[in-house]
Amino acid sequence: MARPAPPFGNSTGHKSPSFRERHMTEIDRRSVLAGALATGAGLLAPRATSPAKAAAPPAGTQNPGWYRYKVGTHEVTVVTDGVNRFKFPDGFVANKSRDEVNKGLVDAFLSPGPDMVAVPYSPIVVNTGTKLVVIDTGTGEANFERSKGAAGQFHGNLKAAGIDRNQVDTVIISHFHADHINGLLTPDNKPSFPNAEILVPAAEWKYFMDDAEMGKQTSDRMKGVFTGLRRVFDGLGRKVTPYEPDKELAPGITSVASYGHTPGHNSHIIASGNDKVFVQADITNLPLFVRNPGWHLMFDQDAAAAEATRRKVYDMLAADKMMVQAFHYPFPARAYIEKTATGYRETMVPWSPTL
Amino acid sequence: MARPAPPFGNSTGHKSPSFRERHMTEIDRRSVLAGALATGAGLLAPRATSPAKAAAPPAGTQNPGWYRYKVGTHEVTVVTDGVNRFKFPDGFVANKSRDEVNKGLVDAFLSPGPDMVAVPYSPIVVNTGTKLVVIDTGTGEANFERSKGAAGQFHGNLKAAGIDRNQVDTVIISHFHADHINGLLTPDNKPSFPNAEILVPAAEWKYFMDDAEMGKQTSDRMKGVFTGLRRVFDGLGRKVTPYEPDKELAPGITSVASYGHTPGHNSHIIASGNDKVFVQADITNLPLFVRNPGWHLMFDQDAAAAEATRRKVYDMLAADKMMVQAFHYPFPARAYIEKTATGYRETMVPWSPTL
Repeated sequence: MARPAPPFGNSTGHKSPSFRERHMTEIDRRSVLAGALATGAGLLAPRATSPAKAAAPPAGTQNPGWYRYKVGTHEVTVVTDGVNRFKFPDGFVANKSRDEVNKGLVDAFLSPGPDMVAVPYSPIVVNTGTKLVVIDTGTGEANFERSKGAAGQFHGNLKAAGIDRNQVDTVIISHFHADHINGLLTPDNKPSFPNAEILVPAAEWKYFMDDAEMGKQTSDRMKGVFTGLRRVFDGLGRKVTPYEPDKELAPGITSVASYGHTPGHNSHIIASGNDKVFVQADITNLPLFVRNPGWHLMFDQDAAAAEATRRKVYDMLAADKMMVQAFHYPFPARAYIEKTATGYRETMVPWSPTL
Repeated sequence: MARPAPPFGNSTGHKSPSFRERHMTEIDRRSVLAGALATGAGLLAPRATSPAKAAAPPAGTQNPGWYRYKVGTHEVTVVTDGVNRFKFPDGFVANKSRDEVNKGLVDAFLSPGPDMVAVPYSPIVVNTGTKLVVIDTGTGEANFERSKGAAGQFHGNLKAAGIDRNQVDTVIISHFHADHINGLLTPDNKPSFPNAEILVPAAEWKYFMDDAEMGKQTSDRMKGVFTGLRRVFDGLGRKVTPYEPDKELAPGITSVASYGHTPGHNSHIIASGNDKVFVQADITNLPLFVRNPGWHLMFDQDAAAAEATRRKVYDMLAADKMMVQAFHYPFPARAYIEKTATGYRETMVPWSPTL
């Protein structure tokens, strides 16, 4: 059975001369494909196998982006808020040129086009058996119209996943950037989770609610961060519960300090039975920063600390083969990590069509 | 901003002594995590923020597995048939030991447990604008009950995706293994796509419908393949249309001979505008065989030809950065391929929450 194989292989088991003749000669793969594509003349004539029927219209809709998996007895639902596609600004990666960023995106198969980037947002919901817990909240429902449906999908997809926002007991916030907290408010600035306690990192609260820190800001972007988050927390009447690292915030959900991206940035570990998953928030943004851990995203407030945190956590994820749930990975945003010669590499966890 | 970062990073922007004290000392990552997990005592006391309400019950359901994307003006819907998890038999990879297979699965983050494998099935539906085309059909509806819902999901998920089987104009079959053809019949052995023309590879038809070839078979598995496919095609009254390679089978959908896995195995290219995707069928099974292209799956009928085809096609996919839609990759089963020192490596295409 080990004859030399012709282009695209051939078999030993049949004797059809027509394609033998065509394929037993050595032709290169490109000419095969070019040939295949050019053979418009080969279009089969339509057959009347049934009474003439109208062409099925395109569906034009996407499956609502939610995905469920178990961690021990905990039930985790990943609920996408959508994907923002935008022209990345100069300095998007502070220590890399625009050309290097473009090349990095192409090399990671993440480029939506020259100078463009596509950033996904994936909050999660954890049902611990006794508590319904949301971790981070997306860009906010008001953003759905603004973004023409590209993002601001979290609350809509939550509904599609059969989750009632009124049933949520606890919302855990990783850090205070808009794409993590804006979903705390409805478009008319009411609490999105009216019956939930809102847990925020103590260090984040202390830093960002400090008027002196706000007064020190010189960049428009950082001023906007302070103003934006205060608008959100004012909408909640500032009724939040600060939390420290290394605390169990809900059954099996523990905070882990992972500072750098912001002064009080926390990640979370969900553990149940023998299973656990590391919910990283923004230790990296896109997998671009997994493959290039030394690249400094413009939103990393303390880039050196963020990089040190990234390397430390990713070394751990790789060594322990621990699953990571990553806010800015492509939905459903679960992966395993391995170490490479130049950084790390993610392998997305296979989708299971059953729970 | 470039102070040395403590474990999990720290920031320069806050002054909260409590966690500074805890975190500014050098402790290793494992002790941090072990500590975090052990701190059950840190569980926050429940707060009565609202009248006592019952715990939300676990949802217990998975999102129906369908996903839509555009190739030019064509609309492709990937519709999972499910995932079979089973103990792999001796010889599952003909030229590798059980230990090597187990290690390969673990290294590729694809192991569901020792001696276990999980094989997904992802048929697709293409709306060309004028024709509704199904490529491969899954393990069959009758398998849904048999597998306790693990597989046989194709027809159910098709419905969830808003696609009416009666509207299907054309079914294209890549090859005659049961997981690709059994979905042609309903559980009561009627045609699943009553208004569709069924296109089958001419070489596959010639080989597998040849009684002399059937008579030559010595293994129970191969006898079963012949018997099984004849049952299916007899259920269709053998009303099929054989197709040759390099033909346009439906607008923008062209056949490409990719023999080896079976004698008449074909892949397909979907092309529209400047977009195209290579619908590989079984040029590889799991990404395990992408990373290890020299491994011979027991279902590769001519293993040497299958490997030659695999390497040739994957060299092309890598060189052209062409997207592959792969029947046995994890849902939604779309990836880009790059060449590595020892084989190839897939990068799953990011899920887009909008069409």
